[in-house]
Amino acid sequence: MSETWLDQVAWDAAGLVAAIAQDAASGKLLMMAWMNREALAETARTGRAVYWSRSRAKLWRKGEESGHEQKVRGIRLDCDGDVVVLEVEQVGGIACHTGHGRCFFRKLENGVWVETEPVIRPPGEIYNPGR
Amino acid sequence: MSETWLDQVAWDAAGLVAAIAQDAASGKLLMMAWMNREALAETARTGRAVYWSRSRAKLWRKGEESGHEQKVRGIRLDCDGDVVVLEVEQVGGIACHTGHGRCFFRKLENGVWVETEPVIRPPGEIYNPGR
Repeated sequence: MSETWLDQVAWDAAGLVAAIAQDAASGKLLMMAWMNREALAETARTGRAVYWSRSRAKLWRKGEESGHEQKVRGIRLDCDGDVVVLEVEQVGGIACHTGHGRCFFRKLENGVWVETEPVIRPPGEIYNPGR
Repeated sequence: MSETWLDQVAWDAAGLVAAIAQDAASGKLLMMAWMNREALAETARTGRAVYWSRSRAKLWRKGEESGHEQKVRGIRLDCDGDVVVLEVEQVGGIACHTGHGRCFFRKLENGVWVETEPVIRPPGEIYNPGR
């Protein structure tokens, strides 16, 4: 298959593009991460979200430790080509490593960030291999 | 008012945070841009979205030229503190400078980016001061 579509992404100086994951059914915004060319290509090929972990400097197959994979139902690109949106089905209903349903669980209320959404499963249970 | 909430944002090396705008009513993802501290402070104070234009290196009061302001109904922060979500009411129903309703009007279909959403109003009409 031609890789023209990958060339049309406006990769930044580090070879990355911002990637936003949105729940395909509810429309909820789940998380934002980064992808390099390999991550986006694999995501499109396999239908499973793969990001580039900047802190670990390696491919991050979402759910590889937690089991909370993202099944990709659609991939969108913005007008400037430097932001990708993944429309996903979030396995387990938990996108965030904190155990919240999504990373955007804090809301500004009267000058304070308030947790408005619960922890669905404690991280100790998610990442404990003896679970 | 205390600015503790601004200190809790994980500003990057350039002093910026990623900012995603989502339609508060429909849940549609509209655009992604960047904010510096001043932009986020003004957004929270005025209830109108203000970004930092990296290309023009100045504050960008969304809608200042197009009239397509964003009225902010909620501000969220992610787990790492380096992504902000604005839940907005998009004035005019057009978030993108291309005249599309939102910047994510292209979708990957069989290895090609396809425009799946229409131009609502041509840019020539939006930005022409003689309109």
